[in-house]
Amino acid sequence: MQLTAHQIGVLLEGTVEGNPEVAVNQLAKIEDAQEGSLSFLANTKYEQYVYTSRASVIIVNQDFVPTQPVSATLIKVKNSYSAFSVLLEKYDEMIKSNKKGIEEYSFIHPTATIGQDVYIGSFSYIGPNVKIGDGSKIYPNTYIADNVVIGKNVTLYAGVQVYFNCEIGDKSIIHSGAIIGADGFGFVPDGQGSYRKVSQIGNVIIEENVEIGSNTTVDRATMGSTIIRKGVKLDNLIQIAHNVEIGANTVIAAQTGISGSTKIGENCVIGGQVGVVGHITIANGSNIGAKSGVNNSIKEENMSWNGVPLGPYRESLKVQVVMKRLPDLEKRILELEKIIKDQVK
Amino acid sequence: MQLTAHQIGVLLEGTVEGNPEVAVNQLAKIEDAQEGSLSFLANTKYEQYVYTSRASVIIVNQDFVPTQPVSATLIKVKNSYSAFSVLLEKYDEMIKSNKKGIEEYSFIHPTATIGQDVYIGSFSYIGPNVKIGDGSKIYPNTYIADNVVIGKNVTLYAGVQVYFNCEIGDKSIIHSGAIIGADGFGFVPDGQGSYRKVSQIGNVIIEENVEIGSNTTVDRATMGSTIIRKGVKLDNLIQIAHNVEIGANTVIAAQTGISGSTKIGENCVIGGQVGVVGHITIANGSNIGAKSGVNNSIKEENMSWNGVPLGPYRESLKVQVVMKRLPDLEKRILELEKIIKDQVK
Amino acid sequence: MQLTAHQIGVLLEGTVEGNPEVAVNQLAKIEDAQEGSLSFLANTKYEQYVYTSRASVIIVNQDFVPTQPVSATLIKVKNSYSAFSVLLEKYDEMIKSNKKGIEEYSFIHPTATIGQDVYIGSFSYIGPNVKIGDGSKIYPNTYIADNVVIGKNVTLYAGVQVYFNCEIGDKSIIHSGAIIGADGFGFVPDGQGSYRKVSQIGNVIIEENVEIGSNTTVDRATMGSTIIRKGVKLDNLIQIAHNVEIGANTVIAAQTGISGSTKIGENCVIGGQVGVVGHITIANGSNIGAKSGVNNSIKEENMSWNGVPLGPYRESLKVQVVMKRLPDLEKRILELEKIIKDQVK
Repeated sequence: MQLTAHQIGVLLEGTVEGNPEVAVNQLAKIEDAQEGSLSFLANTKYEQYVYTSRASVIIVNQDFVPTQPVSATLIKVKNSYSAFSVLLEKYDEMIKSNKKGIEEYSFIHPTATIGQDVYIGSFSYIGPNVKIGDGSKIYPNTYIADNVVIGKNVTLYAGVQVYFNCEIGDKSIIHSGAIIGADGFGFVPDGQGSYRKVSQIGNVIIEENVEIGSNTTVDRATMGSTIIRKGVKLDNLIQIAHNVEIGANTVIAAQTGISGSTKIGENCVIGGQVGVVGHITIANGSNIGAKSGVNNSIKEENMSWNGVPLGPYRESLKVQVVMKRLPDLEKRILELEKIIKDQVK
Repeated sequence: MQLTAHQIGVLLEGTVEGNPEVAVNQLAKIEDAQEGSLSFLANTKYEQYVYTSRASVIIVNQDFVPTQPVSATLIKVKNSYSAFSVLLEKYDEMIKSNKKGIEEYSFIHPTATIGQDVYIGSFSYIGPNVKIGDGSKIYPNTYIADNVVIGKNVTLYAGVQVYFNCEIGDKSIIHSGAIIGADGFGFVPDGQGSYRKVSQIGNVIIEENVEIGSNTTVDRATMGSTIIRKGVKLDNLIQIAHNVEIGANTVIAAQTGISGSTKIGENCVIGGQVGVVGHITIANGSNIGAKSGVNNSIKEENMSWNGVPLGPYRESLKVQVVMKRLPDLEKRILELEKIIKDQVK
Repeated sequence: MQLTAHQIGVLLEGTVEGNPEVAVNQLAKIEDAQEGSLSFLANTKYEQYVYTSRASVIIVNQDFVPTQPVSATLIKVKNSYSAFSVLLEKYDEMIKSNKKGIEEYSFIHPTATIGQDVYIGSFSYIGPNVKIGDGSKIYPNTYIADNVVIGKNVTLYAGVQVYFNCEIGDKSIIHSGAIIGADGFGFVPDGQGSYRKVSQIGNVIIEENVEIGSNTTVDRATMGSTIIRKGVKLDNLIQIAHNVEIGANTVIAAQTGISGSTKIGENCVIGGQVGVVGHITIANGSNIGAKSGVNNSIKEENMSWNGVPLGPYRESLKVQVVMKRLPDLEKRILELEKIIKDQVK
């Protein structure tokens, strides 16, 4: 499919600067682009490539002003990344095969209810009383245990395992290897040096428009529900413990862990490899830097935090700067002590 | 099923305070409980809910003395969480379907030995010479390679993969996506800038009453065995490297990693996201705080440790407190230097 | 199979010290070895065992000089670990069953191309247009989506999931539960408080001789490719984000995460639980200590780094030493302030 800069400008409601007749037939990253490619500039770190890229058309933000000559045609839009992502989506729909129907060697329990236009891949197991809504896609090697309720247009990629009684909302996407509803980690000392398991009778509720990354684990509640609210985006290899609640539209990067019964607010952004202890509350709009350790509730909304120990973001950076000078600081203290000691003599 | 406070008191050998005739028909968390619910208070953080909860009956510790009026009937027991967990377990048995028999589309090698009352789900693969003891449950999508020995009443949830020659003891539970016995990470430089694989010919031995969380990985030994002793509880997404040994009844929280050949003692408690280097020994009863980095052997038993660098728990907390004041400390040193410099003039 | 010390010495081109006629019939770790075992000493931490081991033959490095009497026969070679690994490999080939052929209950799309001597286990799914090269082994419960290209002598262990359009090079080994090509974590704010997914239309390219550990996740590129170069070794539970490139022969330990679009050089060694931010470049030959946080590009090659914040390795260790003394340093500053204050009076 070939489009001119003019056509793309109309499609994205942008302003064309340069030759409007130049045509593109593929999407590419600005640093890799060949002639005939459409690219974009969002992160200013990559601005240099605007001047050297072989891309024929580059989508940029409205406020971008080139500081050198540009050979490509520019299309200025409000949000270049967002605009480009619209094109990516259309392309994605073109290249992805649209799976439908029930493949051989799949197991569907007679008491399960399967909606219209559902895909169920080979080696998938749909247990007793499971409900799957219209348009959902269950890829191969997926296990859906008793009484699970899956909404409409949900995608479970290959190898997802969902334990009994859990719920997954409309349009949610769960990537391969994610485990939904395994037992929470609950044990009590048995008085003889070992532990007795605490049964985990609750479930996991995943609301609509959630995306969960590959090999992420979301444990079922001891009682009640572990809840992932609508619009939440979880990256890969994240641990969500029992009875946690993640507020709507919160985004969490890879390898972060949230301990039991903690409630994360709405619209938070949590970096990778963060650890959050159990039984605390994180206010709406909190922003937590990668590798931070959160030991206490955060009550004030819309603040940025960082570090171990956790501190306000800017203060944490200052601490890190001084940390590097610690051996020098120690010497300076020793120096002062010598001078004082000499004085006292 | 409906029970009165009196009946529950007898069942748990507790003392009833309040109306013994009030009846409950469900279990709930104290903060979510409705009329007719039975709840418990263990963590004093939640004490406030005792006074506001709509639960009809609340199990509390013997030594709990209310500081405000309580409308619920209280049942006082030695350990409220433990007592409640007995009730949870009974409820769990009621709601969980008891899987049995061999489902269609499963593969059982003719040389495998399968005990009595075993469940083998669809799409499970039982390889040559595998032995599975009585009462064990192998959920769908599980792979059990050649010569694996599985004890009695073991549960492997959906999507567990067990490599050849490994052993899993009686009553152990392994959650979905856990990988047992993949090759340890062993390579030698080949002298030409790349690496040659070191074959990993050992196995993994998991003793009885172990629980392993979802997507946790336990690598096989280079030679000999990686050993998880009886009663060990591993949370999700944990890495256990080759030739590690975890002592009996040790508990490890999510996302912690134990490097090769390290021996962890018995009855240790290790927090989440901890890293332990290889070839060291951790004494029995060690308690290691979340996110700590353990670089050296711990020889003294029953001590608490924390931090990067690791230190005794209390000292580590003090270090963290002072760390937050580092920019201020640097200013104070500068101030002192100025004064001294002025004096010297 | 029984071999004499003399025969092993010839095989490994080493020098025999002690009785050349003593025979061994098994391989064992030096600390576990029984009579008739062949062991090795590589890590000098284990030197004590040379003097106490019951092993009949021990392979040591050329420069090893015993400081006590040794009862075992020693074989001195250039690199004891490497020499021993040759023997391990031969043993491994003997004990591992050589899987071949296509097992029942597997799904192979009619448009897929399968090479000679391939193993395809039960419950494996080979999608449309997939190509699998000669001698490759696809274990059970594995999903290979549309258009994936797999080279010769590749091993995918049970439960690996490969998304569409990805490529895996000759002789690479991917362990159970690894997820190749799931969507990168890309979202744009939709202007109404929630996020819109950015389609991920790229793929993952894994070159030859790569090994990927269990439950590691390698995300597909937004556009273009996430690339794992030849000879790379990734341990378990690692996160490789979209558009990352890992240079040839780089080794990464467990639970490390590399954020989007970062380029890691060749021959790097990265410890466990390290976090690397997105959009940076790490120079060839970089060595990064466990648990480090890398926030900026590393430009100088062959340097060692450590810590949060990251610093040169030796300096980072010095910082850690002083950190432990922080509470004491604060007291010393207070002391100085008192003295100065008294002086000013």
